Amino acid sequence: MNTAKRAAQLLSSHNVTSLFDSVEAFLFDCDGVIWKGDKLIDGVSQTLEMLRSKGKKLVFVTNNSTKSRRQYAKKFNSLGISVREDEIFSSSFAAAMYLKVNNFPREKKVYVIGGEGILEELQLAGYTGLGGPEDGEKRAEWKSNSLFEHDKSVGAVVVGLDPHINYYKLQYGTLCIRENPGCLFIATNRDAVGHMTDLQEWPGAGCMVAAMCGSTEREPIVVGKPSTFMMDFLLQKFQVSTSKMCMVGDRLDTDILFGKNAGCKTLLVLSGVTNQSTLEDPSGTIQPDYYTSKISDCLHLLGP
Amino acid sequence: MNTAKRAAQLLSSHNVTSLFDSVEAFLFDCDGVIWKGDKLIDGVSQTLEMLRSKGKKLVFVTNNSTKSRRQYAKKFNSLGISVREDEIFSSSFAAAMYLKVNNFPREKKVYVIGGEGILEELQLAGYTGLGGPEDGEKRAEWKSNSLFEHDKSVGAVVVGLDPHINYYKLQYGTLCIRENPGCLFIATNRDAVGHMTDLQEWPGAGCMVAAMCGSTEREPIVVGKPSTFMMDFLLQKFQVSTSKMCMVGDRLDTDILFGKNAGCKTLLVLSGVTNQSTLEDPSGTIQPDYYTSKISDCLHLLGP
Repeated sequence: MNTAKRAAQLLSSHNVTSLFDSVEAFLFDCDGVIWKGDKLIDGVSQTLEMLRSKGKKLVFVTNNSTKSRRQYAKKFNSLGISVREDEIFSSSFAAAMYLKVNNFPREKKVYVIGGEGILEELQLAGYTGLGGPEDGEKRAEWKSNSLFEHDKSVGAVVVGLDPHINYYKLQYGTLCIRENPGCLFIATNRDAVGHMTDLQEWPGAGCMVAAMCGSTEREPIVVGKPSTFMMDFLLQKFQVSTSKMCMVGDRLDTDILFGKNAGCKTLLVLSGVTNQSTLEDPSGTIQPDYYTSKISDCLHLLGP
Repeated sequence: MNTAKRAAQLLSSHNVTSLFDSVEAFLFDCDGVIWKGDKLIDGVSQTLEMLRSKGKKLVFVTNNSTKSRRQYAKKFNSLGISVREDEIFSSSFAAAMYLKVNNFPREKKVYVIGGEGILEELQLAGYTGLGGPEDGEKRAEWKSNSLFEHDKSVGAVVVGLDPHINYYKLQYGTLCIRENPGCLFIATNRDAVGHMTDLQEWPGAGCMVAAMCGSTEREPIVVGKPSTFMMDFLLQKFQVSTSKMCMVGDRLDTDILFGKNAGCKTLLVLSGVTNQSTLEDPSGTIQPDYYTSKISDCLHLLGP
């Protein structure tokens, strides 16, 4: 882990060529880097085309768990960017893979606080998910002589970003974690906020995960950034050393820390949640190798 | 603060008289001590009558913020126990008093994640509350080109137990705390779970407070137990030293810690969230002076 503080370099025509020549694979975060909500950030399409034309490998590593890999590929394509499912590493996929590599028993169930994407990835990995969107309108009422029942065969609770969070889901997940012996508590990620829409930030998965920590008094296993759990899958895919990868993201505490933890080069873009004053804040402990305002800056810096 | 570990004594006919003789005022927690949900715990009524007949002062110090003092007095009376409003110190009242003693400006507003009790106490203290139950059915949707608006004159967000927690409230409170300069973040309490019904435990205010910590990356001011903020009001009321008070509660991390922090004697009852094995867990750091299964044990221990 290399999180020692060293001032980030502004990406410029002087350093861009050496960075690009030394990197074989670019790892992109999505929210705040590729898009904000449903709007592409300026110049993204041309930048990705340029990188592909130079033979660079591209993957998209997103903490947003509301979609599955398939649903992400669809979103990319609907925005006019050609991306394959296997180029996407979402935290929804990571949660399912965590269960798989840890031989989570197929007869156990998984309770989901989060979106459809987690349920789809669980199903693709051969697991039975409960909860998620179908519990979005359920109500939990405090009644005498009445027990709130939960499924005793739930062996893991996966918590991700959930705009339909409610007390029913919180009670269900809490009962599973507190009362089902050995029940796992898995967080897709802990981002405090995110650019769920183009104009502002909203509570992220870190909000729902913290709620569950508050009621269960347990800490989760985190599978998304900055955890390097997904890196094993990326290494398997690329067969290149992490020093030849560059993580491009808009968050210091997830994207840049993930890149640094894994030994990648790191590039912060200011098109998302981090602004220049946060980057330059002397109390900040995480510094990227490079920073620039948005990924399309590379287009003119690298020249024609 | 006296939290050094010393084994709790089981309340018995040998030590009960010296405890009762040295105590002028008994401070009772409610959930898990007086009632569970809407059911009185066995013998509570007779125990409180016996204490009053012996000239003991009684107050009820509850972290449950869903009700105001007035609403609590009504609940006591409906259960056949005569209690006056000024004998009740709820965390809803504490939140309003915190603003008052800190000269919170009357022209500022207070956003509430929690129940009617907080709004009523704020109003009685002369403040304008927003949110609470009326935001329970509101929905926050992620839409392009659309801004989620919040009131810029909110100067404090009060978070308590809220069975109607939703993403709308979480976004509203988060925006106030993150974007309104100097906005206070006040937690009524941080109980992980509580006996909201007779048969089981449910996520407590600690769940909603943690959610807001997760999205705002801020820590709250806590006014309920184990914070001793309310003790100033109790001292004003009784004019007796805290060494002549006994805090009776079912939770080590709130009730007993509150009593110890304030210099009171402490009595744990096992009729709520703490069982004997938790009390005896060697990793536990908080020990009451005495423990017993329920408050009515005093009746036969003290004899006729």
